[in-house]
Amino acid sequence: MTEAELDQLVAQIGEELLSRMGTSAVSTARKVPAEGAGIPDQVCSGCKQRCAQTCAAKSKQILAAGADRLSASDKLTKIDPSIASLIDHTLLRADATAADIKRVCAEARQFAFASVCVNPYWVPLVAMELANSPVKVCTVVGFPLGATSTEAKRGETEKALAAGAQEIDMVINIGELKGGNHEAVKNDIKAVVEAAHAKGAIVKVIIETSLLNDSEKAIASTLSKLAGADFVKTSTGFSTGGATAADIALMRSIVGPDLGVKASGGIRSLEDLKTMAAAGATRIGASASVKIMEAAAGKAVAPTSATGY
Amino acid sequence: MTEAELDQLVAQIGEELLSRMGTSAVSTARKVPAEGAGIPDQVCSGCKQRCAQTCAAKSKQILAAGADRLSASDKLTKIDPSIASLIDHTLLRADATAADIKRVCAEARQFAFASVCVNPYWVPLVAMELANSPVKVCTVVGFPLGATSTEAKRGETEKALAAGAQEIDMVINIGELKGGNHEAVKNDIKAVVEAAHAKGAIVKVIIETSLLNDSEKAIASTLSKLAGADFVKTSTGFSTGGATAADIALMRSIVGPDLGVKASGGIRSLEDLKTMAAAGATRIGASASVKIMEAAAGKAVAPTSATGY
Repeated sequence: MTEAELDQLVAQIGEELLSRMGTSAVSTARKVPAEGAGIPDQVCSGCKQRCAQTCAAKSKQILAAGADRLSASDKLTKIDPSIASLIDHTLLRADATAADIKRVCAEARQFAFASVCVNPYWVPLVAMELANSPVKVCTVVGFPLGATSTEAKRGETEKALAAGAQEIDMVINIGELKGGNHEAVKNDIKAVVEAAHAKGAIVKVIIETSLLNDSEKAIASTLSKLAGADFVKTSTGFSTGGATAADIALMRSIVGPDLGVKASGGIRSLEDLKTMAAAGATRIGASASVKIMEAAAGKAVAPTSATGY
Repeated sequence: MTEAELDQLVAQIGEELLSRMGTSAVSTARKVPAEGAGIPDQVCSGCKQRCAQTCAAKSKQILAAGADRLSASDKLTKIDPSIASLIDHTLLRADATAADIKRVCAEARQFAFASVCVNPYWVPLVAMELANSPVKVCTVVGFPLGATSTEAKRGETEKALAAGAQEIDMVINIGELKGGNHEAVKNDIKAVVEAAHAKGAIVKVIIETSLLNDSEKAIASTLSKLAGADFVKTSTGFSTGGATAADIALMRSIVGPDLGVKASGGIRSLEDLKTMAAAGATRIGASASVKIMEAAAGKAVAPTSATGY
């Protein structure tokens, strides 16, 4: 895909999304069942007329990717029924000590979380603590501002992989996204993806939803997919807001069933987790993971509703 | 200095500082003149008895470095009398665009600020915008969490220097400081200092005061000095608090007249700047720099009080 084609694609996506969105309501939210999702069943206020005329046809291509969202979500829920296996047990506080990191690793082993997610400095310790366990070693790159150079992100990724990281959660270059330099954003992601995939690791791309409008969220998700990422992820947890069900639904509608969607930032309860999973999230970043598991222990761990969590 | 000697030194400093501090009042604050400094002239509540007996002799060595604070501050004020030349004009927001960065560079040229401080991705642009100007190119490393690996910090520094950075503001490994692994903290700083000094750049060490107690602030300042840093700096601006006059006075008392002290985080007015400079700061990180200059324009730009800025 040439740069011109890419620009054309993202412009088209942006245009279509804007035409289908109200100021805050996401039209695709209508595709999410009301039970448990927490998303209002609102009709798009911005394009009532246009939907009946041109939007339906023009947006067919874009929505094709999202059309399988629910079935994909159901499928993923069936593949991976436990709550614990959805969770990246996360400790990214600047003042976390080695003792804190070890505690988190022990908790992850106990509950069989998907991964332990820490700052890069702690990767060697986590790799040691999680040796001979199915819990993955996850770390962050260009975190949390996303404004280091692409070369620095690639270098940070390579160092983390060498130290034992198996999953890389990178932050996009938000300023370049806002400035419309989509090629730079895509190449920044691609550099990390190539480094990670070369070592068999996966990449989750943090788009920092709280700083983006819906069009920018859609474009960032598209660029992540084009760059070969494995997941798109909502938030660093260090900005102005965290995951919302509407954002998860939007991101899922863009990336389709092939990529994962990770909800992170402000997920502090079992209810929060269920809401995000129902909206399409296949991974949850949380530091309150043990509290969530304790809440889940009093209930059926396997999905109880038709829509999963 | 061996690791054992280093541990002994930092333990001694910690012990002495704790013995001279109340819960929140810093005993060395008594050395700061009341006018403008904003530091209460409190007697240390923790060691009234001990001061009269053993503290005076035991702490002579520690306070020797701080004893010249006022004269050093006066000297620096005389060398550098303008407000603008104290200011690192700072834009570290994750969503800053190229247009934002260019505006900040133009402002820095106009007011002759000491530097423009941006995230590493923007260093090439800033170096271009500031070419043939006395304004320095400043960037951040391991920012804002300080928890990337030492190798990643070194690599990030080298890439930034190659792209045109002349000043590096790095964040210490806060978790290792809290865990008592002082050798790791010192070596982390030293790696960045060596890379920077090899290219003629200076290093400011961000200790993130809002996450530290007074003893940890003192130890972090000591380790920065031992590692060869050029400045100690209070805050990233992305944590739970910013610069305080008491912290500046404490840091200055530790590093003595040879190192710079940079106040950053929450400095939004001319009054804030004056308070920090009176407490011993020789550089100010601010994003409200233009507002500060506009306020100063109505007043004498040169120092008007006996203690200067």
